[in-house]
Amino acid sequence: MIIIMRADSTEADIEGVLERLDDSGYGHHISRGEERTIIGAIGAPDGEKDTAAGQLSVLPGVERVVPILKTYKLISREHHPRPKPVMIGPAQVGGGHLAVMAGPCSVEGHDQMVQTARAVKDAGACALRGGAYKPRSSPYDFQGLGVEGLEHLAAAREETGLPIVTEVMDVRQVEGVAEIADCMQIGARNMQNYGLLKECGGAGKPVMLKRGFASTVEEWLKAAEYIAAAGAQDIILCERGIRTFETGTRFTLDLGAIALARRETFLPIVADPSHATGVASLVLPMALASTAAGADGLLIEVHPRPDQALSDGPQSLTPAAFSDLMREVRKVAEAVGMTV
Amino acid sequence: MIIIMRADSTEADIEGVLERLDDSGYGHHISRGEERTIIGAIGAPDGEKDTAAGQLSVLPGVERVVPILKTYKLISREHHPRPKPVMIGPAQVGGGHLAVMAGPCSVEGHDQMVQTARAVKDAGACALRGGAYKPRSSPYDFQGLGVEGLEHLAAAREETGLPIVTEVMDVRQVEGVAEIADCMQIGARNMQNYGLLKECGGAGKPVMLKRGFASTVEEWLKAAEYIAAAGAQDIILCERGIRTFETGTRFTLDLGAIALARRETFLPIVADPSHATGVASLVLPMALASTAAGADGLLIEVHPRPDQALSDGPQSLTPAAFSDLMREVRKVAEAVGMTV
Amino acid sequence: MIIIMRADSTEADIEGVLERLDDSGYGHHISRGEERTIIGAIGAPDGEKDTAAGQLSVLPGVERVVPILKTYKLISREHHPRPKPVMIGPAQVGGGHLAVMAGPCSVEGHDQMVQTARAVKDAGACALRGGAYKPRSSPYDFQGLGVEGLEHLAAAREETGLPIVTEVMDVRQVEGVAEIADCMQIGARNMQNYGLLKECGGAGKPVMLKRGFASTVEEWLKAAEYIAAAGAQDIILCERGIRTFETGTRFTLDLGAIALARRETFLPIVADPSHATGVASLVLPMALASTAAGADGLLIEVHPRPDQALSDGPQSLTPAAFSDLMREVRKVAEAVGMTV
Amino acid sequence: MIIIMRADSTEADIEGVLERLDDSGYGHHISRGEERTIIGAIGAPDGEKDTAAGQLSVLPGVERVVPILKTYKLISREHHPRPKPVMIGPAQVGGGHLAVMAGPCSVEGHDQMVQTARAVKDAGACALRGGAYKPRSSPYDFQGLGVEGLEHLAAAREETGLPIVTEVMDVRQVEGVAEIADCMQIGARNMQNYGLLKECGGAGKPVMLKRGFASTVEEWLKAAEYIAAAGAQDIILCERGIRTFETGTRFTLDLGAIALARRETFLPIVADPSHATGVASLVLPMALASTAAGADGLLIEVHPRPDQALSDGPQSLTPAAFSDLMREVRKVAEAVGMTV
Repeated sequence: MIIIMRADSTEADIEGVLERLDDSGYGHHISRGEERTIIGAIGAPDGEKDTAAGQLSVLPGVERVVPILKTYKLISREHHPRPKPVMIGPAQVGGGHLAVMAGPCSVEGHDQMVQTARAVKDAGACALRGGAYKPRSSPYDFQGLGVEGLEHLAAAREETGLPIVTEVMDVRQVEGVAEIADCMQIGARNMQNYGLLKECGGAGKPVMLKRGFASTVEEWLKAAEYIAAAGAQDIILCERGIRTFETGTRFTLDLGAIALARRETFLPIVADPSHATGVASLVLPMALASTAAGADGLLIEVHPRPDQALSDGPQSLTPAAFSDLMREVRKVAEAVGMTV
Repeated sequence: MIIIMRADSTEADIEGVLERLDDSGYGHHISRGEERTIIGAIGAPDGEKDTAAGQLSVLPGVERVVPILKTYKLISREHHPRPKPVMIGPAQVGGGHLAVMAGPCSVEGHDQMVQTARAVKDAGACALRGGAYKPRSSPYDFQGLGVEGLEHLAAAREETGLPIVTEVMDVRQVEGVAEIADCMQIGARNMQNYGLLKECGGAGKPVMLKRGFASTVEEWLKAAEYIAAAGAQDIILCERGIRTFETGTRFTLDLGAIALARRETFLPIVADPSHATGVASLVLPMALASTAAGADGLLIEVHPRPDQALSDGPQSLTPAAFSDLMREVRKVAEAVGMTV
Repeated sequence: MIIIMRADSTEADIEGVLERLDDSGYGHHISRGEERTIIGAIGAPDGEKDTAAGQLSVLPGVERVVPILKTYKLISREHHPRPKPVMIGPAQVGGGHLAVMAGPCSVEGHDQMVQTARAVKDAGACALRGGAYKPRSSPYDFQGLGVEGLEHLAAAREETGLPIVTEVMDVRQVEGVAEIADCMQIGARNMQNYGLLKECGGAGKPVMLKRGFASTVEEWLKAAEYIAAAGAQDIILCERGIRTFETGTRFTLDLGAIALARRETFLPIVADPSHATGVASLVLPMALASTAAGADGLLIEVHPRPDQALSDGPQSLTPAAFSDLMREVRKVAEAVGMTV
Repeated sequence: MIIIMRADSTEADIEGVLERLDDSGYGHHISRGEERTIIGAIGAPDGEKDTAAGQLSVLPGVERVVPILKTYKLISREHHPRPKPVMIGPAQVGGGHLAVMAGPCSVEGHDQMVQTARAVKDAGACALRGGAYKPRSSPYDFQGLGVEGLEHLAAAREETGLPIVTEVMDVRQVEGVAEIADCMQIGARNMQNYGLLKECGGAGKPVMLKRGFASTVEEWLKAAEYIAAAGAQDIILCERGIRTFETGTRFTLDLGAIALARRETFLPIVADPSHATGVASLVLPMALASTAAGADGLLIEVHPRPDQALSDGPQSLTPAAFSDLMREVRKVAEAVGMTV
């Protein structure tokens, strides 16, 4: 940490800060400029913590405290310097392979799932996605099939061999979902549901963590650190759009965040252009853009009949449109040196 | 709903929409303008649902679908036309009484709680706030005292008679918190944790729902509807700042949202200027502004020693500063016709 | 500035930074921590500039550069420690007096202006506002009466004695507006129109600078510094709402920004709840909140017939509603120790 | 327009709306639902204007007014259905050709410009960019070389044949810039500087309009309509990042906006990953992403010595890095069927 003293701080103020640093086990370094005195805190005893920064910032004469070190470790490049792929069942995410995970927003029935699974597999998807538990803004909308939905997912895997990615919304669902899913997805609304992060981290299955729609990249990485600290080795990050003032698209896909997070962590990072745009006709260009930006995979919503989907029809592709998308995605993936 | 057809839509497209409306039990009305045909859907069979709008929007020739009706009912003014106060133990929130709830961010020990409770009661607070379970961005920061924290809260109530408002983060904590708290708080990060909303709604205690920091007023009201639909009668809304591009304050307190929500719902609405600003010196002006804007209450963070607080020290007031704040708040409350 | 070196930076990297500082006339101080080396740059020769920070940040081994000093001076509290009122003609803005400036969005005709001026004066306004030049999102909307509008403003002043606040959009209008207006307003869209800032700063009349709807408080203050550097002594800041994800109001009135800017500058700061909310029924609560938050004045849109206004009808108050507002505003102003 | 009446509106309210529509030359269509009456306004006499919507929205009993028609015409696909390339001197932007425009943020001198022009031409750029007039947040930072800068640009064109794109900030510069530049750039801060839009629109040179960093796609298109209405045929749109809560990058590049604007307008749309990210190491991935998203061109900041740049050094590429970028961009461009 660096402590910047106010222009009108006194020697006693500076002494107060130094004593506090000393009490907390920090060394220090003082730099007295013409306009400001600056104190560097050295050797945080067990990592630099937000708590210490907060406490120092309210001492007399302190203008502000600038943190220097990151508070995530297990998922950082300093911990593991090179990108590391994650396996979802037989499907590899990361390591030069673009993993396309496709399927409907909601699991709606056995036939819908098996039919969709076959179609997306034929087109080149490597995993099946679909929600048995659905977070919905209104209590009067379809809330998902729950356990029955998990069974339809398992049946579709049985038929096609595609591994399953599905969302878990509640700590009480973790055990049941972990039993069936190949990868447990934590949704954007739950990115800071810390109980859920910990439970999923300890469930023994890969976890896909969607970025909260108003969370910074740093908060996203800290949330992943919760999962890692709970024991998970296999974590995938997913950028799915952030909330901005623009209302022409549902969210704003933040591809810069993928490039930014890539520098910080070795975890694979995928993109979800379907939720980000909310508009079927924008999914293709944003899928291509995500691939070119360096995403390790894509989540694409596919529904056999978008006009009958119980959720997210407007952003769902038909199997035919998905097949076209895969053809285009392959070309861009090759152009950036990846295989699909 | 209103369905706006594209300029190049065909008669067959229009027929397709009408058939779909008919199948779904809606009547309709067509308005053929020079540039656009517009179809009004009449008499939604069981309320206008997002699902129907989504499905219609992907039919051929449809440009967009404009929802007309609100999807919240139980908490709306149409359901109960006049504002309705909520009791937290002996303390009234709403109905012309400004309820000030004060206390530390985190419960840190027995003495801290009893001392703070006495101080805030003396200054005029009507309820004690403090977190036993703490949502923290980093897994390495203080996570709260848990059950022991609840006991300190109960002890402070015993000593002072102040009712308790405390956060519940996880469905597994609901039963324990409901047993002790006079009001269960759902934090901003959990505003769309639907399992938690439902559990709290069924727990038989008043619930305070903080607005998600990237949630619209409409989403906030829909989240409250979840709680109401689960059985709760006594719900308090709390505006605590939204995330914007401005970094000079921690969040941006959106007082317009209080005025806006007021028109829609009969629920009391309070403001949390401490979390919104994140800066102790800005809490007073924002507390006064909240009061003038028509808030039914205030949440104020008070800590006997902000420089030793385990969380949120920078925004905590000392008991002396809180006492000053109460004096100023009373004047503004009277000016807008409220009692404290 | 503080230069934070990367964990893997070399001695040569550090040397490179020190040499550059030396070449630029800075002294330095090095602090070698266990995980990071930190270099403090001391004694910026002619103020700390963004340019120097940018250049240093791309030197090898540099992780980031943290600026320490503010780049605004003339408008800062360090330059003039206490708030300083500004006179608009006979009306005082700041110094414990709440200045209410009211009138229509657009000047539409002689009778409209005189009638409105009389009404707002009777209700207690101290200045008349109205736009002769109107920035409009669409080229097909009413663009203002221009010079003719200025004449109507002057006529209304003649009749009522109220000084005039009116917008200048273009450097070519500055001379003409300065001749007639008592205060020249720079609108939110032009907050970073630097040519206009400089011209207005040199025109010899007080300038009201609206905050850009996506500008930080720091950028707002830097824009005011442009005006001051061009020679203006009398500058008023105006918070008029920022753009956020919330669409229920037109903008989000950021009252925390008033409190924040207040700490930094001695300039008076007023609020515009009409543009911020865009909804007439929300203007009253936000006017009260602005007053309680410490605003030195209010801009309120008033139109004799909002349903015939050529711009901003939805947010305009009738003279009767404005009169009610003034009655409520007075009470809150008194509660916070101000006169109206 | 569609006028949605409140649930408690009366017959007299409805009559009032119909009369007003009649007076204004609109026909109408009424749809009386169980919960709401909805009125469609038909046949706007001279286009649907914001003014009419605003006036109707304040009539008694009106809940809200929903505009149906777009207020931009000249630049819309309805006016010209297919994308239409723009020539900047000899360089084509749009029509399947990816136009890469490169150069320094600021023109700093003759040698810098000629050297950079040669380097970017060798690497494959088709136009030279560089600012002679610079909008800077602080009045104490380098403000550009002005007329001298224009001469250096002209000299570099002379040497290399590359056409010039350069910013105009002020109406008084339009004539001078138009004389020398092959394309006049209007910066993000000036997107709603309507005087400037009109002057540039009438200057007889192609205009590149950057999106305001807090402007919606719709506002961006309306601003382009201003230029078109002033007479310009050749307009290029440029997405350069929007302001969001994320601070890890300088702005958030909104590639969805390119895809969205593409559906609405025939104008070419380019992307500026340098300003959007503000970080040199993120420029390459975002340049590739922009290309894959369907951009018609790229603006890339290149400086021979980023550590000595007078502005935007942190986001500038060296000529060598630019050459690498061009190699990668070419591959992605080919993958999406474009030539460079």
